[in-house]
Amino acid sequence: MSESASNTSQRKSEHIRLCLTNEVSFRQKTNGFENYEFIHSAITEVDLNKISFQKKLFGKKINYPFLISCMTGGTSEAENINSMLTEVAEEVKIPIGVGSQRQALENAYFHNSYKIIRSKAKSVPVLGNIGAAQLVHLNVKEIQKLVDMLDADAFVVHLNPLQELLQPEGEPYFVGLLNKLESLCKKISVPVIAKEVGAGIEKISAKRLLDTGIKGIDVAGAGGTSWAGVELIRKNEIENPFWDWGLPTAYCIRTVSELKKNYDFILIGSGGINSASEMAKAFALGADLTASARIVLQKLLNEGPEHVRIMIESWFKHLKGVMFLTNSQKLSDLKKNKILKKELLT
Amino acid sequence: MSESASNTSQRKSEHIRLCLTNEVSFRQKTNGFENYEFIHSAITEVDLNKISFQKKLFGKKINYPFLISCMTGGTSEAENINSMLTEVAEEVKIPIGVGSQRQALENAYFHNSYKIIRSKAKSVPVLGNIGAAQLVHLNVKEIQKLVDMLDADAFVVHLNPLQELLQPEGEPYFVGLLNKLESLCKKISVPVIAKEVGAGIEKISAKRLLDTGIKGIDVAGAGGTSWAGVELIRKNEIENPFWDWGLPTAYCIRTVSELKKNYDFILIGSGGINSASEMAKAFALGADLTASARIVLQKLLNEGPEHVRIMIESWFKHLKGVMFLTNSQKLSDLKKNKILKKELLT
Amino acid sequence: MSESASNTSQRKSEHIRLCLTNEVSFRQKTNGFENYEFIHSAITEVDLNKISFQKKLFGKKINYPFLISCMTGGTSEAENINSMLTEVAEEVKIPIGVGSQRQALENAYFHNSYKIIRSKAKSVPVLGNIGAAQLVHLNVKEIQKLVDMLDADAFVVHLNPLQELLQPEGEPYFVGLLNKLESLCKKISVPVIAKEVGAGIEKISAKRLLDTGIKGIDVAGAGGTSWAGVELIRKNEIENPFWDWGLPTAYCIRTVSELKKNYDFILIGSGGINSASEMAKAFALGADLTASARIVLQKLLNEGPEHVRIMIESWFKHLKGVMFLTNSQKLSDLKKNKILKKELLT
Amino acid sequence: MSESASNTSQRKSEHIRLCLTNEVSFRQKTNGFENYEFIHSAITEVDLNKISFQKKLFGKKINYPFLISCMTGGTSEAENINSMLTEVAEEVKIPIGVGSQRQALENAYFHNSYKIIRSKAKSVPVLGNIGAAQLVHLNVKEIQKLVDMLDADAFVVHLNPLQELLQPEGEPYFVGLLNKLESLCKKISVPVIAKEVGAGIEKISAKRLLDTGIKGIDVAGAGGTSWAGVELIRKNEIENPFWDWGLPTAYCIRTVSELKKNYDFILIGSGGINSASEMAKAFALGADLTASARIVLQKLLNEGPEHVRIMIESWFKHLKGVMFLTNSQKLSDLKKNKILKKELLT
Ligand SMILES: Cc1cc2nc3c(=O)[nH]c(=O)nc-3n(C[C@H](O)[C@H](O)[C@H](O)COP(=O)(O)O)c2cc1C
Ligand SMILES: Cc1cc2nc3c(=O)[nH]c(=O)nc-3n(C[C@H](O)[C@H](O)[C@H](O)COP(=O)(O)O)c2cc1C
Ligand SMILES: Cc1cc2nc3c(=O)[nH]c(=O)nc-3n(C[C@H](O)[C@H](O)[C@H](O)COP(=O)(O)O)c2cc1C
Ligand SMILES: Cc1cc2nc3c(=O)[nH]c(=O)nc-3n(C[C@H](O)[C@H](O)[C@H](O)COP(=O)(O)O)c2cc1C
Repeated sequence: MSESASNTSQRKSEHIRLCLTNEVSFRQKTNGFENYEFIHSAITEVDLNKISFQKKLFGKKINYPFLISCMTGGTSEAENINSMLTEVAEEVKIPIGVGSQRQALENAYFHNSYKIIRSKAKSVPVLGNIGAAQLVHLNVKEIQKLVDMLDADAFVVHLNPLQELLQPEGEPYFVGLLNKLESLCKKISVPVIAKEVGAGIEKISAKRLLDTGIKGIDVAGAGGTSWAGVELIRKNEIENPFWDWGLPTAYCIRTVSELKKNYDFILIGSGGINSASEMAKAFALGADLTASARIVLQKLLNEGPEHVRIMIESWFKHLKGVMFLTNSQKLSDLKKNKILKKELLT
Repeated sequence: MSESASNTSQRKSEHIRLCLTNEVSFRQKTNGFENYEFIHSAITEVDLNKISFQKKLFGKKINYPFLISCMTGGTSEAENINSMLTEVAEEVKIPIGVGSQRQALENAYFHNSYKIIRSKAKSVPVLGNIGAAQLVHLNVKEIQKLVDMLDADAFVVHLNPLQELLQPEGEPYFVGLLNKLESLCKKISVPVIAKEVGAGIEKISAKRLLDTGIKGIDVAGAGGTSWAGVELIRKNEIENPFWDWGLPTAYCIRTVSELKKNYDFILIGSGGINSASEMAKAFALGADLTASARIVLQKLLNEGPEHVRIMIESWFKHLKGVMFLTNSQKLSDLKKNKILKKELLT
Repeated sequence: MSESASNTSQRKSEHIRLCLTNEVSFRQKTNGFENYEFIHSAITEVDLNKISFQKKLFGKKINYPFLISCMTGGTSEAENINSMLTEVAEEVKIPIGVGSQRQALENAYFHNSYKIIRSKAKSVPVLGNIGAAQLVHLNVKEIQKLVDMLDADAFVVHLNPLQELLQPEGEPYFVGLLNKLESLCKKISVPVIAKEVGAGIEKISAKRLLDTGIKGIDVAGAGGTSWAGVELIRKNEIENPFWDWGLPTAYCIRTVSELKKNYDFILIGSGGINSASEMAKAFALGADLTASARIVLQKLLNEGPEHVRIMIESWFKHLKGVMFLTNSQKLSDLKKNKILKKELLT
Repeated sequence: MSESASNTSQRKSEHIRLCLTNEVSFRQKTNGFENYEFIHSAITEVDLNKISFQKKLFGKKINYPFLISCMTGGTSEAENINSMLTEVAEEVKIPIGVGSQRQALENAYFHNSYKIIRSKAKSVPVLGNIGAAQLVHLNVKEIQKLVDMLDADAFVVHLNPLQELLQPEGEPYFVGLLNKLESLCKKISVPVIAKEVGAGIEKISAKRLLDTGIKGIDVAGAGGTSWAGVELIRKNEIENPFWDWGLPTAYCIRTVSELKKNYDFILIGSGGINSASEMAKAFALGADLTASARIVLQKLLNEGPEHVRIMIESWFKHLKGVMFLTNSQKLSDLKKNKILKKELLT
């Protein structure tokens, strides 16, 4: 195993360990959902039994529009984690993302930690993943290999300029990224999705991304896991103001969803979605899919896979309640003026 | 007594017991009245002695536009409670609502707890009551019987989707409700009123209700008794975010009153009206009648019927003061720009 | 001495005693000045030595546009208090108001407490005073006698509906007041001023007052002495929400000053002006004169007349500083956009 | 040494001593930067290695647009302080201002404390300095001598009306200042800059200044060092409300930068810039140069010159990060809508 590969893998282990605590949350910034309230509908004729979240995603049927966010791969724990998460995904019938496949490019040692996902995810969509910092150095053929390794249903490029900036091993260099994305979208066999990792994508960046041809945006906004925090703890620089850098998730979803008028894409709302009501508000603000990362990992490793399933199902049970109480028979109804800024409710 | 009837009656007893405490209030939401201030009028020519609150309601004369909200019926305590409350209502000359008559549909065991009201309310309006969840399964004839049982002056349908959702025995199913209301309004012998039970009715729902032909809306907004809270305590699920679900009473009154331009209806302001100044603000924001439930019950059972009377009279004494100080000779004057958002008063 | 006269005088003594404490301040409301900030002018060419506050008021020269507000009269202490305050007023050359002359109408026992003022106020304006509740029962001749008793330079009618409402001995009845004011203004020998006593006069009431012909308005807004508080302490009803009733002084001055466009009148800013910077902001918001009551009384009785003088002079020294720093050579310059809401200063 | 000269020098020593503590900060006012947030750009193609802050200032090349603000001169400590600061400035290649040259006008005793600056600042711009209160009494020739003494590259006139007002020895008299500035600008050999010392220059004053022909404005706003505080501690008058007088730095920069449309000038942002992120926001709001005074002095005297250098370099390293994360290759890009009021980010 090469030095660098071993480093990448060690770093990833460290990340997982830190993410099991809550110390890596934003400290002075929230995801913004607390500023919103649902508009209760005293008159509701929603039939709870007819609410269904089933839909097709990348050609496959899923039960809930909820994605287990890209997390691990390329570490000794990863194989085990991915295996358990995929079992949950397959049982619950939801899509799952794989952690950065960078490691897979470096050597073949942990290839299994990626492949296990596809082998267990028989029916649900699996999303490949690579960082933008790697992407700028790769050609489409190499990316296609990553897709093929997983038989991925879509491919995620994560944009993490803040993390690359702060990480001692970081590569804060994305020159040529938009061009690269454009040619990737043209030539690769599956839809491409762009995501952040906790600092958020707002309307302007989203528009530039959509103009390259990508088919999905995961805002991964501020207020949940602070990747700056993770890196700053590792560097022992916890006073650095970058810890709280980023755009609140609610703001990102709200502004990016305005682009739906002119672009056809999947809007994934994520970043600090750690409860049923945050998830519900993400949908109401315009998300097509929501996603969570750290809370899923915590549930999995602290309580076991069964509790990941329970959590997801209970969140959607709550969401059904919200839909019932806002007279929204379908998830799309929930997006039509069913939520308001709190300050307007007086 | 059938199982289910006995259950309903037991549940109602539990409700009453919980409502004697303050634990069932909203926890993170207020009724919104604290955001408003009256505009003092240094020049007032109001003649306090000529202020009168007398008016006709459903063809009967009342002294105060204040309703003792629908609460009990169908429990062993109910007969006694209703008896005492009705005596107060008759003495003070105010309308009184009866608790859900669902129990009366189930069996005849506690019919007296309802009938006692009419027998003591010789001169004041009495309002019948049924839940929307029951209404969808009933026909107009059955409802007419409930009206007749009480010789009711009006009939209230309570909309409580949140409660039905959370209640273990709940029936969160209101499909066909608007149609049902429409035919009810057409055929029943008395005016129909729609009310919530603490989550609020705002403009959009109100408009849909008024289009069915109902003649009154009791907003029963958030900030007072949380029925979600009541049910969640019973289920031992006190962390559930639905506890604080709902639209603040002030918001509901303010927005629903805008419909007065186009519809002819009685607007009842309620939901956490526990003090004289909250009641005064409810009128200033547009209510024709105000109503309280839990505080009345608490006064009654903790201090005795005499104190219910004292409370109501002292509230209206305070209201007279507010009218005097805002140069409002009639209650209708109080609704004309006599109140402002606090933030504008600088 | 008649019962009622003795009562009035006793009540007034009680008022004075209570006003020496700070317990009678508003509890949850401020005068609103803290929401404003001066706009610093780095470039100032103001000549501090040429700033003068001298002006003519009711035909007499005064050194400072500051009024010792109407307070006492008709009590055993009053003669002494008025004597000392007038000496200060005469020394500093500022106008002084006399407390309600109601007592003088009732009997002649304390006439001296009023007359002493004129005898010592050789050169400065003296203002007579009566409550609106008395005015409605008096004819112009009787008022003229009150003016003559003092050789008053102007006559103040105080509007205190809140106090009359709460005072056990109160007469909350002002029917006919505007007409009365109109004929008073026409026939009396001196200009008439209307004032509140701590609940404020805003634009709408001010307009109605100006239309009667009055020549001055003293807003006497909320945030300083709460007369409701005074009366509620006397009645042992300290939970009454009327304690904090009223319109903040800053709001009153700001809105009433807008009437300057169409009316010619003296705008007196008062109500909780207890510091130099509150006084300065009152001028900047549009007051022609400012006034204080309780703090003057407290200084006088707790520290002695010399400290009243020192306080007033130090306040105007501070005001000079404010004018210097906002490039305002004259007080009128200070009113031209030299102050902003704090929230705009970011 | 004349009395007055000795006094000036003693006062300056006292100032320095006080400024080593944090007691002289604003107490209830901030510089306002905390109300702003950068707009994260998930898509950035900035090449960190190509970011350069080098520019020409007054004909000389500097590495960073950062000015060590005018502080000392004319005291026994001054020579040493200035010597050390200039070494840092020369090493880092940044401009440096000299403290008020008033002392140099009074006698020649401490001339060296000024001259040492030029002798060590071989390549970077040096800024002369005089107070506006002195300027109004001087003619252009005298000022030219001050410029020549330093071979200054620009000349700063500090506007400190608040300080002059409060200082026991103060001369709060600036009559004729604008005219004086106009003739100075016409006749002196170097560009003239106007600055405040902690109370701020906003748009209106800035416009009046620019109309005289000055070429730079240093807003020196409120939120950092309170010179009123310094003087009030000396006078033992710490309750004086002037302590917090002034316009927040962020407000000043934001409003003065609007004048860039019509005027050609250097906008210097300063006043409480004590951290990297405050500096970054100052640029984003429109500053061409930023400056700090007290924190530099504190670093120098508490930690040594090396730490001044480290601080400045680390701030610009942080700024590079901010530029990277907001997709701003050049500092001028950072000024184009890369920052938002926090309240808009929900
Ligand atoms: C342990 C861990 C590892 C992660 N690794 C990746 C990754 O490899 N690729 C990626 O796109 N995002 C990665 N993320 C970011 C998440 O996908 C997600 O965008 C972010 O954590 C915000 O969501 P959260 O607040 O729900 O945790 C990782 C997150 C965690 C917690
Ligand atoms: C003990 C209790 C029983 C109630 N039962 C009924 C009912 O049977 N029907 C109904 O329409 N509302 C019922 N309510 C709701 C009240 O009418 C009212 O809308 C709600 O409590 C909000 O008002 P409050 O904040 O003044 O309590 C009940 C309330 C209480 C406290
Ligand atoms: C002891 C005392 C007696 C007062 N008596 C009168 C009065 O007789 N007539 C009147 O117009 N206002 C009277 N006032 C009201 C004051 O003139 C003034 O409007 C009010 O106190 C608000 O000002 P402040 O906050 O500076 O005290 C009295 C105030 C005090 C403190
Ligand atoms: C010790 C000290 C001495 C100062 N002397 C001067 C001076 O002589 N001339 C001047 O224009 N500003 C002087 N200033 C003001 C600074 O240049 C600066 O405008 C002000 O302190 C605000 O910046 P800060 O918050 O970074 O300290 C001085 C500041 C300090 C701390």
